[in-house]
Amino acid sequence: MSKQKKDEQRPKPRLPRGLRDIEASELRQQQAMLVKIREVYERYGFEPLETPAFEYTDALGKFLPDQDRPNEGVFSLQDDDEQWMSLRYDLTAPLARYVAQHFQFLAKPFRRYAAGYVFRNEKPGPGRFRQFMQFDADTVGAESVAADAEMCMLAADTLEALGIKRGDYVIKVNNRKVLDGLREVVGLSGEEHDAKWLVAMRALDKLDRLGPNGVRELLGKGRKDESGDFTNGADLDATAIDTIMSVFDAASGDRLSQLEASLGDSPSGAAGRAELQQISDLVRSGGYGDDRIVIDPSVVRGLEYYTGPVFEAELTFEVKDEKGHPVRFGSVGGGGRYDDLVARFTGQKVPATGFSIGVSRLQAALNALNKDKAAPADGPVIVTVMEKERTADYQKMVQALRAAGIRAELYLGNPKKFGKQLEYADKRNSPCVVIQGSDELAAGQVTLKDLVEGAKAAEAIKDHEAWREQRPAQVTVNAADLVAEVKKIIARHTD
Amino acid sequence: MSKQKKDEQRPKPRLPRGLRDIEASELRQQQAMLVKIREVYERYGFEPLETPAFEYTDALGKFLPDQDRPNEGVFSLQDDDEQWMSLRYDLTAPLARYVAQHFQFLAKPFRRYAAGYVFRNEKPGPGRFRQFMQFDADTVGAESVAADAEMCMLAADTLEALGIKRGDYVIKVNNRKVLDGLREVVGLSGEEHDAKWLVAMRALDKLDRLGPNGVRELLGKGRKDESGDFTNGADLDATAIDTIMSVFDAASGDRLSQLEASLGDSPSGAAGRAELQQISDLVRSGGYGDDRIVIDPSVVRGLEYYTGPVFEAELTFEVKDEKGHPVRFGSVGGGGRYDDLVARFTGQKVPATGFSIGVSRLQAALNALNKDKAAPADGPVIVTVMEKERTADYQKMVQALRAAGIRAELYLGNPKKFGKQLEYADKRNSPCVVIQGSDELAAGQVTLKDLVEGAKAAEAIKDHEAWREQRPAQVTVNAADLVAEVKKIIARHTD
Repeated sequence: MSKQKKDEQRPKPRLPRGLRDIEASELRQQQAMLVKIREVYERYGFEPLETPAFEYTDALGKFLPDQDRPNEGVFSLQDDDEQWMSLRYDLTAPLARYVAQHFQFLAKPFRRYAAGYVFRNEKPGPGRFRQFMQFDADTVGAESVAADAEMCMLAADTLEALGIKRGDYVIKVNNRKVLDGLREVVGLSGEEHDAKWLVAMRALDKLDRLGPNGVRELLGKGRKDESGDFTNGADLDATAIDTIMSVFDAASGDRLSQLEASLGDSPSGAAGRAELQQISDLVRSGGYGDDRIVIDPSVVRGLEYYTGPVFEAELTFEVKDEKGHPVRFGSVGGGGRYDDLVARFTGQKVPATGFSIGVSRLQAALNALNKDKAAPADGPVIVTVMEKERTADYQKMVQALRAAGIRAELYLGNPKKFGKQLEYADKRNSPCVVIQGSDELAAGQVTLKDLVEGAKAAEAIKDHEAWREQRPAQVTVNAADLVAEVKKIIARHTD
Repeated sequence: MSKQKKDEQRPKPRLPRGLRDIEASELRQQQAMLVKIREVYERYGFEPLETPAFEYTDALGKFLPDQDRPNEGVFSLQDDDEQWMSLRYDLTAPLARYVAQHFQFLAKPFRRYAAGYVFRNEKPGPGRFRQFMQFDADTVGAESVAADAEMCMLAADTLEALGIKRGDYVIKVNNRKVLDGLREVVGLSGEEHDAKWLVAMRALDKLDRLGPNGVRELLGKGRKDESGDFTNGADLDATAIDTIMSVFDAASGDRLSQLEASLGDSPSGAAGRAELQQISDLVRSGGYGDDRIVIDPSVVRGLEYYTGPVFEAELTFEVKDEKGHPVRFGSVGGGGRYDDLVARFTGQKVPATGFSIGVSRLQAALNALNKDKAAPADGPVIVTVMEKERTADYQKMVQALRAAGIRAELYLGNPKKFGKQLEYADKRNSPCVVIQGSDELAAGQVTLKDLVEGAKAAEAIKDHEAWREQRPAQVTVNAADLVAEVKKIIARHTD
């Protein structure tokens, strides 16, 4: 067979679009994030639960497969017995299945947290993947609004535990019932107005981006954007628009009283307002001010799903978008009350509320905050191989370093070219390399090359002589002091 | 619609067979295991890498889908563009894809570790699941046998870090080339003897269970087991059987010299023997004796896959099998050298060696070792709700406890029946509950009920009076001392 033909038969090493590999530094950071998030969720009394990556499609619900194309929104596969299974698209659907399955044996309210990858069969885009990680907490079986208030406090504490400063985030709280009340007041109740109301809600979701005037246009006839494209509006009359905007324009402190005025005598609106008031009281008495948890009726996402309070965790600092324009970082998590989920299985309504962090998105935010920090020299110490037949001796040094808790390894490539060993250590971000040639061996010594100082020296090459006198990048020490001397070098570069 | 009809339309809350939920105590234990394993792998200089849960089927290789039924051994699904993708069945195939994809940019040797779930579309059984966790370390691009020796030391250190005592485990090392040499010596080289050699290898894999005599029967004509069933043997002649058994029967210290005698002048056998000798020298000089890492030619698993050294990590202590008979716990991990994997993509051989721990299986082993330990009272402190309208006050106590790092929660169920709140706290494994009724409030106090002492008291009910005098399960303290007093109770039950 020709070489070309053979090449053609070989698979290409590649990933399906929307999937990605996560490499060491990002993975370590993710690991550290998960530890901190877990610590907060545990402190709040939630217990961990892990469900498998895929389940029966009918048990996950929501995205039901059609006959021809079961892959709409989810990734589906068939079992031996022809039953359809799907990769989980969130962590809530498997929770509902679990609770329905074990209901009678659970301590209720049932409080669980879960971290894991979820899968969406959607068009990927920049920063938008088909596998990503969520970290959820949910309380099932608690009607009390105190359970919702707790979710908001959990969200705030989690963001602070991750190093996001007060003022750089806010937890916004709304209530589906308030929006239902508003809908009643402006005369858009009833299924015949569903489409109109949806357009109005989409307009409100753009308040941050378009400002009040832009939203008013979209609530009315429509809006022409900078490119000249025209978007049809909800076609509401001026009174309706004023009523709606009165809720959204109110200064934050006055929002609850403004709601009372704007919602008139709608029972649904009154119920929603009362719940928001209770949440506000509970978080205030827990010590969370308006700078951290705020009532904000403009949170309108996921309202076809949530049945009561809705929360959104937003980062308020600005980052540069793809075009270099400053934009608010925005949402990194959200949640709310969903009282219908377990009923799919059992027919019985079970009250539930939850909060979900988008771990991958939050990690992007932390990267934006820490982008100027230099990468630490956290690679392993490399023990070089000067004489191949003495590999066992070098291995012994490696084991001595490891036994002292130091990341260390023997250079395992071809040792012929010593320069390659140093290049390798540089690439691995090593703090130092250990060298023992025949001269050092005869003198009972080892040479340690400090790679961090060495790099600095190379940069400040002009002042090389002066630097050499002050602190050499290379020291020769007694072989017996190997561990202690390596520790000194590492300590010099850690703080 | 009738109620019955509605019930029939509801999905059943259930999992596909071979999948399972992992609950709090097991998950916490798994988490602790992963932290310890990671710590050792990091110390050895490996860097983390995470690849996605599924990949293109052709890139994973090995299990290629046939046209009708792509699900043989793996779980497969189709992308929008009809291309087949499969859930990863191990962590090595994705590593090979990653290395082939990024080869020129990697620091070589490339050393990575990975922990994650893998998926097998196989018949599940007791303790055998279709999703389970592996924790792998691999070194790619190192020809040196020192890389293999390091894997053995890594395995030993990992097991000890997990609390498995020296003597309770052993890392066995063999070499594919030794077995190839043995095959030459007994005259079974050549494809025409493949089937016969396979029967012989399967016989040797049963050495632990059947003993030397049973294996001899299976190497010869065959063997009748206790039930009277007859298994055909490899039909080797007496000289061949003696040669093979001379290798496997040797006392452990003599194995290398016995190999030299048994393998005669087979070049492959000599090469394998030399590699085993080097590994033995390297681990000895690293301080690992025969009690931890031992040369053992009876390791014959995975030999169609590995090309050089092969390792198996075995737990040597006994557990009871399903019938109550004592059996050696057996293998919890393994690995070896596989020099052909990256060549599938690039055509170039790249030497590689690795070690993989079966996390789920190892966890079962640790459970067997620790089965008599009592579960700790590690649940949250429950602040009970005596007067619903004072929820905000109770919430404040919860937040004060949490701020001090104590797991705590407000009782979020219906507070009407106080007994239910205590029942809940018991189920949650709480160390204590906090109670503040109107009397306590008026006196500026709270009552703390120690549930661990309470349970003891309930058990020793006869001595109830006496016990009460010595250490009450219930104390009333100043509300201002809440945090300090709760800490005292928790400290009493932790050590």
